[in-house]
Amino acid sequence: MMHDLLIEQAVKAGLREDLGRAGDITTEAVIPADRRTVCTMVARDAGVIAGLDFARMAFHLIDPSIKFEVRIADAGRVQPGDVIAVIAGPARGIVTAERVALNFLGPLSGIATATRGIADAIAHTKARITCTRKTTPGLRFAQKYAVRCGGGANHRFGLDDAILIKDNHIAIAGGIVPALQAAKRHAGHLVKIEIEVESLAELRDALAEGVDAVLLDNMSLDMLREAVGIINNKAIAEASGRINPGTAAAIAETGVDLLSAGWLTHSSKILDIGLDFESLG
Amino acid sequence: MMHDLLIEQAVKAGLREDLGRAGDITTEAVIPADRRTVCTMVARDAGVIAGLDFARMAFHLIDPSIKFEVRIADAGRVQPGDVIAVIAGPARGIVTAERVALNFLGPLSGIATATRGIADAIAHTKARITCTRKTTPGLRFAQKYAVRCGGGANHRFGLDDAILIKDNHIAIAGGIVPALQAAKRHAGHLVKIEIEVESLAELRDALAEGVDAVLLDNMSLDMLREAVGIINNKAIAEASGRINPGTAAAIAETGVDLLSAGWLTHSSKILDIGLDFESLG
Amino acid sequence: MMHDLLIEQAVKAGLREDLGRAGDITTEAVIPADRRTVCTMVARDAGVIAGLDFARMAFHLIDPSIKFEVRIADAGRVQPGDVIAVIAGPARGIVTAERVALNFLGPLSGIATATRGIADAIAHTKARITCTRKTTPGLRFAQKYAVRCGGGANHRFGLDDAILIKDNHIAIAGGIVPALQAAKRHAGHLVKIEIEVESLAELRDALAEGVDAVLLDNMSLDMLREAVGIINNKAIAEASGRINPGTAAAIAETGVDLLSAGWLTHSSKILDIGLDFESLG
Amino acid sequence: MMHDLLIEQAVKAGLREDLGRAGDITTEAVIPADRRTVCTMVARDAGVIAGLDFARMAFHLIDPSIKFEVRIADAGRVQPGDVIAVIAGPARGIVTAERVALNFLGPLSGIATATRGIADAIAHTKARITCTRKTTPGLRFAQKYAVRCGGGANHRFGLDDAILIKDNHIAIAGGIVPALQAAKRHAGHLVKIEIEVESLAELRDALAEGVDAVLLDNMSLDMLREAVGIINNKAIAEASGRINPGTAAAIAETGVDLLSAGWLTHSSKILDIGLDFESLG
Amino acid sequence: MMHDLLIEQAVKAGLREDLGRAGDITTEAVIPADRRTVCTMVARDAGVIAGLDFARMAFHLIDPSIKFEVRIADAGRVQPGDVIAVIAGPARGIVTAERVALNFLGPLSGIATATRGIADAIAHTKARITCTRKTTPGLRFAQKYAVRCGGGANHRFGLDDAILIKDNHIAIAGGIVPALQAAKRHAGHLVKIEIEVESLAELRDALAEGVDAVLLDNMSLDMLREAVGIINNKAIAEASGRINPGTAAAIAETGVDLLSAGWLTHSSKILDIGLDFESLG
Amino acid sequence: MMHDLLIEQAVKAGLREDLGRAGDITTEAVIPADRRTVCTMVARDAGVIAGLDFARMAFHLIDPSIKFEVRIADAGRVQPGDVIAVIAGPARGIVTAERVALNFLGPLSGIATATRGIADAIAHTKARITCTRKTTPGLRFAQKYAVRCGGGANHRFGLDDAILIKDNHIAIAGGIVPALQAAKRHAGHLVKIEIEVESLAELRDALAEGVDAVLLDNMSLDMLREAVGIINNKAIAEASGRINPGTAAAIAETGVDLLSAGWLTHSSKILDIGLDFESLG
Repeated sequence: MMHDLLIEQAVKAGLREDLGRAGDITTEAVIPADRRTVCTMVARDAGVIAGLDFARMAFHLIDPSIKFEVRIADAGRVQPGDVIAVIAGPARGIVTAERVALNFLGPLSGIATATRGIADAIAHTKARITCTRKTTPGLRFAQKYAVRCGGGANHRFGLDDAILIKDNHIAIAGGIVPALQAAKRHAGHLVKIEIEVESLAELRDALAEGVDAVLLDNMSLDMLREAVGIINNKAIAEASGRINPGTAAAIAETGVDLLSAGWLTHSSKILDIGLDFESLG
Repeated sequence: MMHDLLIEQAVKAGLREDLGRAGDITTEAVIPADRRTVCTMVARDAGVIAGLDFARMAFHLIDPSIKFEVRIADAGRVQPGDVIAVIAGPARGIVTAERVALNFLGPLSGIATATRGIADAIAHTKARITCTRKTTPGLRFAQKYAVRCGGGANHRFGLDDAILIKDNHIAIAGGIVPALQAAKRHAGHLVKIEIEVESLAELRDALAEGVDAVLLDNMSLDMLREAVGIINNKAIAEASGRINPGTAAAIAETGVDLLSAGWLTHSSKILDIGLDFESLG
Repeated sequence: MMHDLLIEQAVKAGLREDLGRAGDITTEAVIPADRRTVCTMVARDAGVIAGLDFARMAFHLIDPSIKFEVRIADAGRVQPGDVIAVIAGPARGIVTAERVALNFLGPLSGIATATRGIADAIAHTKARITCTRKTTPGLRFAQKYAVRCGGGANHRFGLDDAILIKDNHIAIAGGIVPALQAAKRHAGHLVKIEIEVESLAELRDALAEGVDAVLLDNMSLDMLREAVGIINNKAIAEASGRINPGTAAAIAETGVDLLSAGWLTHSSKILDIGLDFESLG
Repeated sequence: MMHDLLIEQAVKAGLREDLGRAGDITTEAVIPADRRTVCTMVARDAGVIAGLDFARMAFHLIDPSIKFEVRIADAGRVQPGDVIAVIAGPARGIVTAERVALNFLGPLSGIATATRGIADAIAHTKARITCTRKTTPGLRFAQKYAVRCGGGANHRFGLDDAILIKDNHIAIAGGIVPALQAAKRHAGHLVKIEIEVESLAELRDALAEGVDAVLLDNMSLDMLREAVGIINNKAIAEASGRINPGTAAAIAETGVDLLSAGWLTHSSKILDIGLDFESLG
Repeated sequence: MMHDLLIEQAVKAGLREDLGRAGDITTEAVIPADRRTVCTMVARDAGVIAGLDFARMAFHLIDPSIKFEVRIADAGRVQPGDVIAVIAGPARGIVTAERVALNFLGPLSGIATATRGIADAIAHTKARITCTRKTTPGLRFAQKYAVRCGGGANHRFGLDDAILIKDNHIAIAGGIVPALQAAKRHAGHLVKIEIEVESLAELRDALAEGVDAVLLDNMSLDMLREAVGIINNKAIAEASGRINPGTAAAIAETGVDLLSAGWLTHSSKILDIGLDFESLG
Repeated sequence: MMHDLLIEQAVKAGLREDLGRAGDITTEAVIPADRRTVCTMVARDAGVIAGLDFARMAFHLIDPSIKFEVRIADAGRVQPGDVIAVIAGPARGIVTAERVALNFLGPLSGIATATRGIADAIAHTKARITCTRKTTPGLRFAQKYAVRCGGGANHRFGLDDAILIKDNHIAIAGGIVPALQAAKRHAGHLVKIEIEVESLAELRDALAEGVDAVLLDNMSLDMLREAVGIINNKAIAEASGRINPGTAAAIAETGVDLLSAGWLTHSSKILDIGLDFESLG
């Protein structure tokens, strides 16, 4: 759930950054205080919506009298021209909040759209698409929510909610087995353990020691298939590396449970959304 | 200047988000407290660096004894394999801070790289590339800095440091002339005024009224050339819309002073940078 | 515009400072919880009002059921005895919030009153009165707003929204011309450049190099007149130093565009405003 | 004691307000990064210093390598031209932090100077000068410290650390006696109780009921003398209203223990302090 | 008074800590968004209630549509099974906020209950029970309020609102008399002074010098009685050390004014309070 | 790991609460600024230490020149009289920071001590003792750390890092099976699911559906034994309810994996630790 308590904090920071010390001097100069307007939030491109509560909060914090009526909710698909929301109220507040609202909604919808693209490509398999910790500092909770809106699953939210043993950890620990044993001694009973393996030998070591999930990084399709066979449902199989709309289906078809891709949250293209004002003159 | 006072606040937020309530449980379980390591921060792709102070701060805040030695400074160009920095100290702290450091450095360098691409494409003209307010909420100061590292110029930082009259403002104000007159009455003496024009008639009106800069949005090359002629150095000419590495040169060659592009800050691809650990075993 | 988002933050800090850890122990001991009252906010001296939204917010944050009805709005002139606002609701909340409300309203109205005094004195000229960065740390946005309420104009809001090259900058840069050239290389297209000049020779150098505004500090009336002639509308002329109600008219009559005075924000006298309670017994 | 923990918070807020989102763009453009300088902080007027730790902190937070050497400590008296401190280090940092440092030091020294003026005028009596809660929101702790630097005493710091029953409280409570009785029932054993009295009859009532201190507001000198006689050291006598350098001695000579004046903290004139740069060229 | 301004800050921190980055994933998964419920907050043990405003705030911040109707107010006594409040609204919000609400209400009621136990035991004497500064960092204001709900009095709220000279201070100052003299020179007129004495000789010294209160630490009943006789109402007598339900009456009967006990705030047992859901299926 | 980044935030809040607006007025009055001292932090009771980094941070934030030398580290056992740390530096800073340092160290050590008591009692079994979410708002991360210092394990840190389906969830969801199915659809691949069962029938349903852990609340020893047999290592078995030093061994001997107890964090007795000053006179 996206609690307003979390959303409010992020949106306030965004608004304060934009208002600076003097506020919206253009709007104050040019738009009369009593002018009211109605505008529509419109998709300019096809995609999936995520983050309407951030947009609603931006308008609300600038002027609580602004009405924000959702037409296509988060996780909904849009085509160019679709009306996502209708916004009505004092023109000054709407114009002032617009950019911050869209600075949340556009990128989050971009993440949802990119995720949806992979999710659709692998819908015929049992695999799910998931994100990573390669997120924008301070906005991880929002970006992970956008992944869910796009039909994806969430990986860990931080360093503290699951154990993920990567190549460097293994090298320092002296191998797969000592790393896993140390992790098990340390982990609370509700903490899962995942380990990155680079070869089928390492995979067998990890499974022999016992582990909740294995990360199969940058393996060929053949190797993935073989790995899935070895795992044989004794652990969750996550494939990472080179996941994109073109490759996802083939990778998912190897039988892995998860595909993970950092670019969903750090390099996906914004979904172009704009505000169309009505009855301005 | 990127004051540590501003950087620290953003990096602390990023680290707290990643550490959560329990800290890095993997590292604590698997890496001995007294293990030290040296690692190199390496470019995996070609680009321009931006944000090393954020990365340095991330390591410093986790463990002040970590040394961070810069080899290629912000604004420097890198090729795949280039060592950007050398990091030495307790292995736990380095592993814990790594992701947050890269979550700043990668996207900021991506922005610098994208900006550099346009800046290089228009280097033979007098035009400069600039960014917009389409930035990540809370990180605008950092993203605008990255644009400068890539050879770009900065547009306004917020709603309060310049007047930019856009189409909706003009519609509400009743036209170019009343909008400009209202703006001039309101503006402080160190505040510049820019206005968006959609036709050459509007451009002539704006120039007749007097204005510091004009935003020429989505005009054809021919129209831009004609606009530049009309402006005749009486105002700064900014072209926006469809600016990309392929189009930038032709647009700049029309004689405009500035090209502005929102995608630099909201949709540019991360620059792939990684940490290579040495002497782990 | 004075957004509630900015006002709320400042007023919360003021209230928390005054409530401490135990709250208003006098009021809690002495005033029954169910006692209601009506009181009037009254000017005890003549002046100009600024900051009613801060006062309103103080009462609102202590008890949202308190009604705050404005009779003389910000920028309005008052005479001793004039009722500025009527406040009605639970007596405890009104008494508790009173001091913080007045600690904003009195000093801000004092700034507005002082500004109005200069503005009136120069109303027959084209000159405007403006403030400086000599403000109370943390309250600059409020004090600059008060200057506007008093009929003044705002100078820059911080180090980041305009370039102002002062004597020390010039000395370090090696002169007017190199300083201006460096500034122009660095400035964004919406950033204006102002430079302090100490002689007519320096003024001519600055104008020859091109600059948006010149700061004429502590010049005699004759020198100011000569400077205005030299400038000849090619830059904005700002006079500073020894601006007060007695000198302002003569300085403005030299033809300068702006008079700036730091004391407006750092040393102006509070406007005496009090709360008169009705029907207490 | 002025703990750095409290000072740091206030100075950080002041610096962030001044740096905005882009930092000191003038200094960055005009002053080379490697230029070092020495400057002296010099009194331009006679007065008493207060707030050097705020100034030191401002320079330190901008650049920890800046040296700040105090020559005349807080509470010390200065004459025009006296060197208060010597500051040495990178020129950029010194120039950037200068205004915020002075925005603390000047007004706080102004408060100390005004307080010292009253304290000197009443030095031949047993009376002390004290401040009120009419302070700048967020900076009360600093302003109360400045009063101490000027030889004054501190009144309560907030609504929670002492009980002060004023006219409105008394009116609502139904008189001096019921108000005092309610206060005593409520007060903790380390909380003192003071009450405002408007007549000698009220004073006698208060003393009969028992109270720690009485506030004698706006009484004539004769009435004050009579009140002091009635009090007869059974309570602390505080006189308020019309306290200024011309009236203070006579009021103090009535035998009261305290003179309180709100203008010390809300309307005292800044002490003019400047930075003189050496060896800039 | 417990101002919402203070409560809100503490409850927001508690909720954010519990929601983390992903919110209540159990509730989101298992409880339909449109399910509404009514539940009762029930005492599982006998005691005294304190902190209902914290509980109410927790539900309110998660979902403002949740109704929170108090049946037994703060300071009220409860028996096992008593309904303290009735809560109605969306089931998701109620389930999500429940733990944080109880994490405030249970421990605060535990403090009130423990305080009430002592207060009842000494009700036949003039003595009152009071707390110390041995509180939970960040929650002192709440815990001191709970002491008041239990019929106790509050000691100082911090290091800054009264002078309490303890054994270490005395040793460093060189004795009772120099310590008291230094304190009197320093204290504002509304600041009381209390001193710890370890012998009757020290007590006589303190009284001779003059002091507002004396702390009699760990004295025998006989010694306390003798001390009370010596004090003879010239100062407040506070006994501390080994105060518990079994010893309090005898200590109070020695004639002291106050009993102080740190365990009330740092080691009292939580009052067991739970939520009973109705009509869930 | 207890990162200083997290500790600093909590300790700063505690210090600011104690310093208030005027700082430590007793110490400032009574202790000379240049007095130095050495003191020992001494256990007054037997127990286990937790929280030394909080104590160290308190002294450091008040005065960075104070040395804090640990003699018995976190998780170490102490007997009455054992020296835990030696603290040396300016007397003022040590006296000022002492209470906040101990307000962290005492309660956290109390939690560690209580946990150790249970951990020792069940050391002959495979079971571990764990905590719950019944923690002090804002200090959960610290209290969970204290549990680890006492030899305990941590349950989830918040609502977001594991799914724990309790009786109310099950009632609303319509039973064990639909609740578990909903949870599985919702949970990320690294999120474990635990469910509370109230009967062996419910236990069998849960195991049949598949679950990571089961919470056996308030079951008799016989029923626990039977449950353990049914579970047969297919899930983690957690027993809760009535866990105390007297009952823990018998409960652990039933074969469960975990014992959980809320009182460890909400009602354990503080460990009495004091500061002994040397060479004060």
